[in-house]
Amino acid sequence: MQKTESPIEQEREDSLLAAIDLGSNSFHMVIARLSQGELTTLDIMSEKVQLAAGINHKKHLSDEAMESGLACLSRFAQRLGDLPPSSVKIVGTNALREAANRRDFAEKAEKVLGVPIEIIAGREEARLIYLGVSHTLADTAGARLVVDIGGGSTEFIIGERFEPKELESLHMGCVSYTQRYFSDGILSEQSFRKAENAAMRELLSIRERYRQTGWTSCVGSSGSIKAIKNAVVSCGLNDEFITRKALEQLKSRVLSFADIETLEIPGIKPERMAILPAGLAILIALFDSLGIEEMAFSDGALREGLLYDMAGRLRHEDVRERSISALSQRYYVDEAHAQRVEQTALLALAQVKASWKLNHPDFHEMLSWAACTHEIGLTIAHSQFHKHSAYLLQHSDLAGFSNSEQQLLAFLVRGHRRKFPKEDYRQLPEGRKEPFKRLCVLLRLSVILNRSRSTERLPAFSLTADNKKLDLTFPEGWLTHHPLTHADLEQEIEYLKNADIKLTIT
Amino acid sequence: MQKTESPIEQEREDSLLAAIDLGSNSFHMVIARLSQGELTTLDIMSEKVQLAAGINHKKHLSDEAMESGLACLSRFAQRLGDLPPSSVKIVGTNALREAANRRDFAEKAEKVLGVPIEIIAGREEARLIYLGVSHTLADTAGARLVVDIGGGSTEFIIGERFEPKELESLHMGCVSYTQRYFSDGILSEQSFRKAENAAMRELLSIRERYRQTGWTSCVGSSGSIKAIKNAVVSCGLNDEFITRKALEQLKSRVLSFADIETLEIPGIKPERMAILPAGLAILIALFDSLGIEEMAFSDGALREGLLYDMAGRLRHEDVRERSISALSQRYYVDEAHAQRVEQTALLALAQVKASWKLNHPDFHEMLSWAACTHEIGLTIAHSQFHKHSAYLLQHSDLAGFSNSEQQLLAFLVRGHRRKFPKEDYRQLPEGRKEPFKRLCVLLRLSVILNRSRSTERLPAFSLTADNKKLDLTFPEGWLTHHPLTHADLEQEIEYLKNADIKLTIT
Repeated sequence: MQKTESPIEQEREDSLLAAIDLGSNSFHMVIARLSQGELTTLDIMSEKVQLAAGINHKKHLSDEAMESGLACLSRFAQRLGDLPPSSVKIVGTNALREAANRRDFAEKAEKVLGVPIEIIAGREEARLIYLGVSHTLADTAGARLVVDIGGGSTEFIIGERFEPKELESLHMGCVSYTQRYFSDGILSEQSFRKAENAAMRELLSIRERYRQTGWTSCVGSSGSIKAIKNAVVSCGLNDEFITRKALEQLKSRVLSFADIETLEIPGIKPERMAILPAGLAILIALFDSLGIEEMAFSDGALREGLLYDMAGRLRHEDVRERSISALSQRYYVDEAHAQRVEQTALLALAQVKASWKLNHPDFHEMLSWAACTHEIGLTIAHSQFHKHSAYLLQHSDLAGFSNSEQQLLAFLVRGHRRKFPKEDYRQLPEGRKEPFKRLCVLLRLSVILNRSRSTERLPAFSLTADNKKLDLTFPEGWLTHHPLTHADLEQEIEYLKNADIKLTIT
Repeated sequence: MQKTESPIEQEREDSLLAAIDLGSNSFHMVIARLSQGELTTLDIMSEKVQLAAGINHKKHLSDEAMESGLACLSRFAQRLGDLPPSSVKIVGTNALREAANRRDFAEKAEKVLGVPIEIIAGREEARLIYLGVSHTLADTAGARLVVDIGGGSTEFIIGERFEPKELESLHMGCVSYTQRYFSDGILSEQSFRKAENAAMRELLSIRERYRQTGWTSCVGSSGSIKAIKNAVVSCGLNDEFITRKALEQLKSRVLSFADIETLEIPGIKPERMAILPAGLAILIALFDSLGIEEMAFSDGALREGLLYDMAGRLRHEDVRERSISALSQRYYVDEAHAQRVEQTALLALAQVKASWKLNHPDFHEMLSWAACTHEIGLTIAHSQFHKHSAYLLQHSDLAGFSNSEQQLLAFLVRGHRRKFPKEDYRQLPEGRKEPFKRLCVLLRLSVILNRSRSTERLPAFSLTADNKKLDLTFPEGWLTHHPLTHADLEQEIEYLKNADIKLTIT
């Protein structure tokens, strides 16, 4: 999976990048210039969309919330101008993870922005937040705890320098807790206690482990923590850091108001006021649960993490490579065999990528990764192992991958042997169906050609494709001398009829 | 999970055991006396039922095949007499693994025999075959390859003494290959080649690995190999061992007949004649693929393996314990926490086992194992980890466990947190629903009580059950001092309403 650096790629590095974060509370966009590996922010935009508040108990995102989200995105789109799609990255977090009709929203948003939306898992969100925050901090030794209170989830990371060591995302956020514990708008000691207790219970699942791992400094990011820090400073409760005592004083001040309607706290913008009590309750709970004494604030966030992640990929430091290799090690993959399958698959791709429109480098990568991991399921059981491999790819926490990338990888691996998986195919996003069906066929062929798991060199096969037709030609006599492969390929002709592909063998 | 040995258990050891193997070609029963750890065979019965031949391409087992199987079992039942159910073990193999309506058959068979049918995975079948065969062989050093050609699957084991090192089961058998390659009854070189090639292709998935592991002696078991050995001897092709050359000569002899109808080979019983060609083709393929030179025959088989497995459990050498502990290690379980949950669960079980009819030791074991493994899914991802744990328990090759035991364990673990899993519950076998719902509730409570993952001693709680009611009482003041647990238990009251259990907390 090595790549060479061409002068063109060098040049591309001095370019504009944009990241959009579809958060549960606000949507954010940041545009930056990447030059010599350094990012300079050129423009930022934020809008309070409160997607999380538009999700009902049946996990349905309302039409109104969807429309206000799309309206915000069309404003962002205008600012994006003619940035090429490969320079823009858009991720959705907890609200979109939870919404049953997220695909609806994602498809509409893709139309508005011209770039696919990636919905990422909680731990991936945590990894990106850490990446964003750590770039704002001094590059000094010592473990740090980073906390980000979002609208629907809160992320907890322990890391050192740019390396995260612990990544977690818990189901609690300032929007969802406002709905759950402050929906009547009344500010009471009891509502606070309920919200704090709920947060404490969530924290139980990480408390022991995090305390054991330990940290020497603690940093908060996110709008909620920024607002609280501003209030602490504006009210003169402390100068720079948020302390446990300052939080208690701020809570008393909040409780001196009867309801959210009339609440006013210096340093807090009016549009943030309604979600302040819930954010405050969560922050108090996590100070208590984790034994935090003081917390600094960092402006770094998910969106900056996205930018650094993109910049890393341009410099060929793709964290996804590491995830794939960790996965293949954890599940004891026969790496020599996986490599043979990968090489054959890439050789096949090289021959048909023009005619089958598979030129984009993403296809090359996805095919490589599928080849590397197609046998991970063998650790679970031999029988139906392709299904187990797919399950692991779909559900594992894989740093750097979005949910839909994991779905696509899982599809390729699910389809690498036996019947073509029509049902899984049907569930792919519309625009990915055709290319990923083709990639799946290439993977299948390379698995068949390497089925003997031997180190014997494969023949110089030639592959040509034309829409629904695929012709595979071997040097004369090879098939006669390899009757098992021949029989497998005959069987494959039958299997591929189900994928509406006409394979011929010569 | 230690148990003490009571005089009563000592006594029980000198007792009768029966094992029934519902094979794809034949059903077998063996009754033996266990005394001082030694088994003495008292009775054997075999009937050619050919279950595999009654399965159509839609994986449906025909009514006729089902009836002839049940008729055979009612004859077995008569011979079993009044052996207690705990002394009888009945397993189904490939034909029942494949039949979509296996549960129908299993339920009817259970009615006939009064003992549940366990359908086992291919690798578990291989393990039991090795156990049976290795007890018939001298206890000498050196790796052995053991091969068993069944009606629907063929098992390959490499082991030394009583320890298997490699276990595989491939989809090829003398009944299914007869249907596929000799269905017209004509004996031709071409039919043989097709059958041999198909077997060679199946063998590709293990050939390299098995050759690398290596063996010093090779032993075949199963009716097919016995028949071929008898033919080899009766035809004077070799004296004791099956050799590659003898197989070739036997094949020529078979091909000297025009069709199966008229086939006659010395040493082969008439009712075996029809499946001889397919068995011969499979055996030739595996000699070639694995490079076997000669093969001895052993009378040991799955059914003997079952007896030794039962005897081992009576002596508290339950291979299932090892499987569970291997699983918990492979997936890096926090063992101290798992142990706390197990202890609490067993403490809960002890208090309600009389009123909730959970006295049988199996329930104790299953609850222990569920507690030990409930967190294995965390290795995949934190989010929804109870589902991942259940997936691994359901699909992993777990030595000693039947499919239905794995389903029950998976159910307990699937239901250990969040909503009670009604859909999985609905899919449990009728007779297991009530007890396993109750076990699941006990596991849930012990997970809640240990949620802080701390080493702090739990209070002396008292649990009483009465049909659909469960009362949990804590020492006075404990709940007040543990508001998080209290809140969790309040939530649990709601969750359990969905399981039709009325929990009260005092």
